[in-house]
Amino acid sequence: MPSCEGMLGFGDRVKTVKEKRALYIGRFQPYHKGHHAVIREIASEVDEIIICIGSAQRSHEIENPFTAGERYLMISKSLRAEGINNFYIVPILDVNWNAVWVSHVESLIPPVQVVYTNNPLTERLFKERGYEVRTPMLFNRKSFSGSEVRRRMLCGENWEELVPPAVVEVIREISGVERLRELAKSDKAE
Amino acid sequence: MPSCEGMLGFGDRVKTVKEKRALYIGRFQPYHKGHHAVIREIASEVDEIIICIGSAQRSHEIENPFTAGERYLMISKSLRAEGINNFYIVPILDVNWNAVWVSHVESLIPPVQVVYTNNPLTERLFKERGYEVRTPMLFNRKSFSGSEVRRRMLCGENWEELVPPAVVEVIREISGVERLRELAKSDKAE
Amino acid sequence: MPSCEGMLGFGDRVKTVKEKRALYIGRFQPYHKGHHAVIREIASEVDEIIICIGSAQRSHEIENPFTAGERYLMISKSLRAEGINNFYIVPILDVNWNAVWVSHVESLIPPVQVVYTNNPLTERLFKERGYEVRTPMLFNRKSFSGSEVRRRMLCGENWEELVPPAVVEVIREISGVERLRELAKSDKAE
Amino acid sequence: MPSCEGMLGFGDRVKTVKEKRALYIGRFQPYHKGHHAVIREIASEVDEIIICIGSAQRSHEIENPFTAGERYLMISKSLRAEGINNFYIVPILDVNWNAVWVSHVESLIPPVQVVYTNNPLTERLFKERGYEVRTPMLFNRKSFSGSEVRRRMLCGENWEELVPPAVVEVIREISGVERLRELAKSDKAE
Amino acid sequence: MPSCEGMLGFGDRVKTVKEKRALYIGRFQPYHKGHHAVIREIASEVDEIIICIGSAQRSHEIENPFTAGERYLMISKSLRAEGINNFYIVPILDVNWNAVWVSHVESLIPPVQVVYTNNPLTERLFKERGYEVRTPMLFNRKSFSGSEVRRRMLCGENWEELVPPAVVEVIREISGVERLRELAKSDKAE
Amino acid sequence: MPSCEGMLGFGDRVKTVKEKRALYIGRFQPYHKGHHAVIREIASEVDEIIICIGSAQRSHEIENPFTAGERYLMISKSLRAEGINNFYIVPILDVNWNAVWVSHVESLIPPVQVVYTNNPLTERLFKERGYEVRTPMLFNRKSFSGSEVRRRMLCGENWEELVPPAVVEVIREISGVERLRELAKSDKAE
Repeated sequence: MPSCEGMLGFGDRVKTVKEKRALYIGRFQPYHKGHHAVIREIASEVDEIIICIGSAQRSHEIENPFTAGERYLMISKSLRAEGINNFYIVPILDVNWNAVWVSHVESLIPPVQVVYTNNPLTERLFKERGYEVRTPMLFNRKSFSGSEVRRRMLCGENWEELVPPAVVEVIREISGVERLRELAKSDKAE
Repeated sequence: MPSCEGMLGFGDRVKTVKEKRALYIGRFQPYHKGHHAVIREIASEVDEIIICIGSAQRSHEIENPFTAGERYLMISKSLRAEGINNFYIVPILDVNWNAVWVSHVESLIPPVQVVYTNNPLTERLFKERGYEVRTPMLFNRKSFSGSEVRRRMLCGENWEELVPPAVVEVIREISGVERLRELAKSDKAE
Repeated sequence: MPSCEGMLGFGDRVKTVKEKRALYIGRFQPYHKGHHAVIREIASEVDEIIICIGSAQRSHEIENPFTAGERYLMISKSLRAEGINNFYIVPILDVNWNAVWVSHVESLIPPVQVVYTNNPLTERLFKERGYEVRTPMLFNRKSFSGSEVRRRMLCGENWEELVPPAVVEVIREISGVERLRELAKSDKAE
Repeated sequence: MPSCEGMLGFGDRVKTVKEKRALYIGRFQPYHKGHHAVIREIASEVDEIIICIGSAQRSHEIENPFTAGERYLMISKSLRAEGINNFYIVPILDVNWNAVWVSHVESLIPPVQVVYTNNPLTERLFKERGYEVRTPMLFNRKSFSGSEVRRRMLCGENWEELVPPAVVEVIREISGVERLRELAKSDKAE
Repeated sequence: MPSCEGMLGFGDRVKTVKEKRALYIGRFQPYHKGHHAVIREIASEVDEIIICIGSAQRSHEIENPFTAGERYLMISKSLRAEGINNFYIVPILDVNWNAVWVSHVESLIPPVQVVYTNNPLTERLFKERGYEVRTPMLFNRKSFSGSEVRRRMLCGENWEELVPPAVVEVIREISGVERLRELAKSDKAE
Repeated sequence: MPSCEGMLGFGDRVKTVKEKRALYIGRFQPYHKGHHAVIREIASEVDEIIICIGSAQRSHEIENPFTAGERYLMISKSLRAEGINNFYIVPILDVNWNAVWVSHVESLIPPVQVVYTNNPLTERLFKERGYEVRTPMLFNRKSFSGSEVRRRMLCGENWEELVPPAVVEVIREISGVERLRELAKSDKAE
């Protein structure tokens, strides 16, 4: 009986699956301790974890303040700081065409056996393509969310406790809080 | 005196107009009895009706759950079931550039003499190009609308009575209601 | 044992396969008797044939003189003239991203069981997605080819014998030969 | 010590800066007396002012009723009417990728030394690229705004007093108020 | 009898035609004395000339070395140097969709009554939309062509005599010849 | 005196440069021993090397047979096999707009101090942005090139000796040679 792997990848490529690889998809605006806890756990269970930075072309918006390159740095520094090396980071642009989006991701990454996500659309799209999709438990979800971190940045509250130390460092160096506040100024005319 | 047809099509192409052709543009999320009644009537009056599926690239969204291919199937099965054969179906992608959108449609379809639509923007754009545009009367508009069908699907109410039988069949086979409900789950984290 | 159909379509959609449907993909610049013979034969063997007009956005080029709308008309008139009604025509834009192209086509058409094409790239891409692909025998291939038809148009030779009568009619009405010759003039400056 | 100009332009191009050039970016939906007052003042202080029409591809929307060509005409007629000739107008399409947007603008215009804008995002993006950005004082900002002009058009109030005479003329000739009202009609079905 | 103007522009916009406006479309890689002679003559015959910079997004290629901004500067400096002020310059991106290209241009510029071009495709596309198109005589066409100017730049011959003095100045300041030569180096590996 | 670093990155982000990072850009169709030797050497000299996979959207072409995901696998397996861990791999889509391409790359990667490339266009574009660009010496360039590897695959010669062992393994598992040969079949009709 053919294994389920036949539906997972692109064409013959899937035969190459020997390592166990997982895919984690998020926007990471910014990378916080909720992401970090989940990714550390997945990384300890698989040979390699592919971390896709979604909406890679978005930045300098209230909901998406950081560039893909800046998010890349937050993730890699935080994981390296803990001695984790079995990860890959791949920026993924929005295609605004849901029915081809999984193909788009598949063409940019090595084949994976399982997908982790907390986004219902991502979950559905990968499921319809035949993937096993898991939705990780998020501890203390109310605090550890991107929108809470951004809210605290805007209000001058303690956002630093919600993210790994390396992320604090990156955001300080790029004047990230100042950027967010300037973007939040209301348009003066137009 | 030159006829008005000189403004309708693309270059010399318009001379080819011998058959009477009408254009109907909609999103069909999903195709319902309101669409069906109007299209049957138009089909009986013209030689051929071109049915354009707008926003063809959208799917797997609460407001746009179905792919263009799935909508294609709903329309063609419903019309064939009634013995109607003088129709064409053309998926149209959004171009997000209103001033070129009519040209975009014209380049993909045979020339038409009249445009039917209930969308004010489509109406205006075709009028500014010199087309005759008609806005079909919709009976019982409150029930026969895409948003009402989707609302009933989400709430577990009787949506089947609002669409032709062939559409019920298609949506059942693609697990369309299940898809819509999964997409409606609130994002668990990000 | 799961059937191969599980790999053919997009998600659950494939369960809807009851009719036998075939896909034929070509550029049809223009539609000629070689295409016509093959499509008539396929149409007689399946319930429905989906005819995809590839490179739909191309026109007004020496190699691609006709718009998708004009090609649409050539195909539909030629088939209707023979009493063939079990076909659909779908314009497909180039995406310039081969690895997502099959997904793109799948999202725009009803599910199909077999793909016909004489283009090696199309053949390979559908095969890697798990489709059955057939390459139709083309009789008298040297004459019945789009490039031969265009060559004869430019040289003032008898191109009409290579295409169905309805195509002659369409091309005459749009002044297609004149268009091709004007495009072939060498650029006068720049 | 290297001057700051080294960061302003694209590559070697910046050496060409001899004239004093300013950039003013707006959407101009429509061009009103607030824009006009600011541009007249800037034009009197620099050798040349580059006026970028942002969101050039948008038109026929309630918030963006006019095409780039129509906005072009409003601006050029209003300035010419006052004998102002030291301006350039450049339509700029949205790229929806903030981090590359400044590069996009730079590639389409002559090099500039200072940027004027009232949009916080434009301000931030040019600042991060090292530009000097100024936010012009807008007198009577509440009245002289695009949204107020559009509101008055929809409500039948006196919008003409808010725009230069040449803009009244352009909007009358294109039936701009009628267009806006038709677009504002609620969708009758879908 | 309706005048031909009814077919020239976009919707009602055409009524605004009072000034006599001409459109000249070229790539200007670079702007040379052939372009200059033609544009000076057109400018003396009409109220305003719109100069469209085609393929605006192309630069840093052997055939297209200069950015739209650099070409803008070449044209405007050359014309201003002769006291010519009744021109507009509009960068036009390639859309790679010939059948919608005229609409695209129309949406970005004021309405025009006549189009000048030496490119057969541009000529055909505007003709099919109903425009009057003229192909200006080019004196000494062999020398005054973009390809000859670029050839001389690469070979170290006298290219300066083929372009207006202001263009020499711009190209020197941006190290344009050096750029062209570096791009012409054959790829060392890949 | 400000250091050159001020020109290297995007806005304030560059202050974050503490690690020494190099950028290597290639298409890797496929990854061969020439690439491998250079990257190993660079990796030994810097803290981190960013490897950008150019033309990421291209695959299934004679000149570009492999997807970005497949190339990703070739590179990562080859480097991991030698115990090299201080690298990142980032797929980069073509933007077909040279003047914004560097900005595009900058927005997707962490800031770098030096760029390695053998492509003259990449070299020029990064130089014009103020980057230090180095063109690595390639030993035995004639053999160690992507085109030579592809030629040998097509002709049935020994291509395996030109690539690292991990690449042989990946290409075998995806039936890469068979894919290339099928793509090379001449089009049978069209």
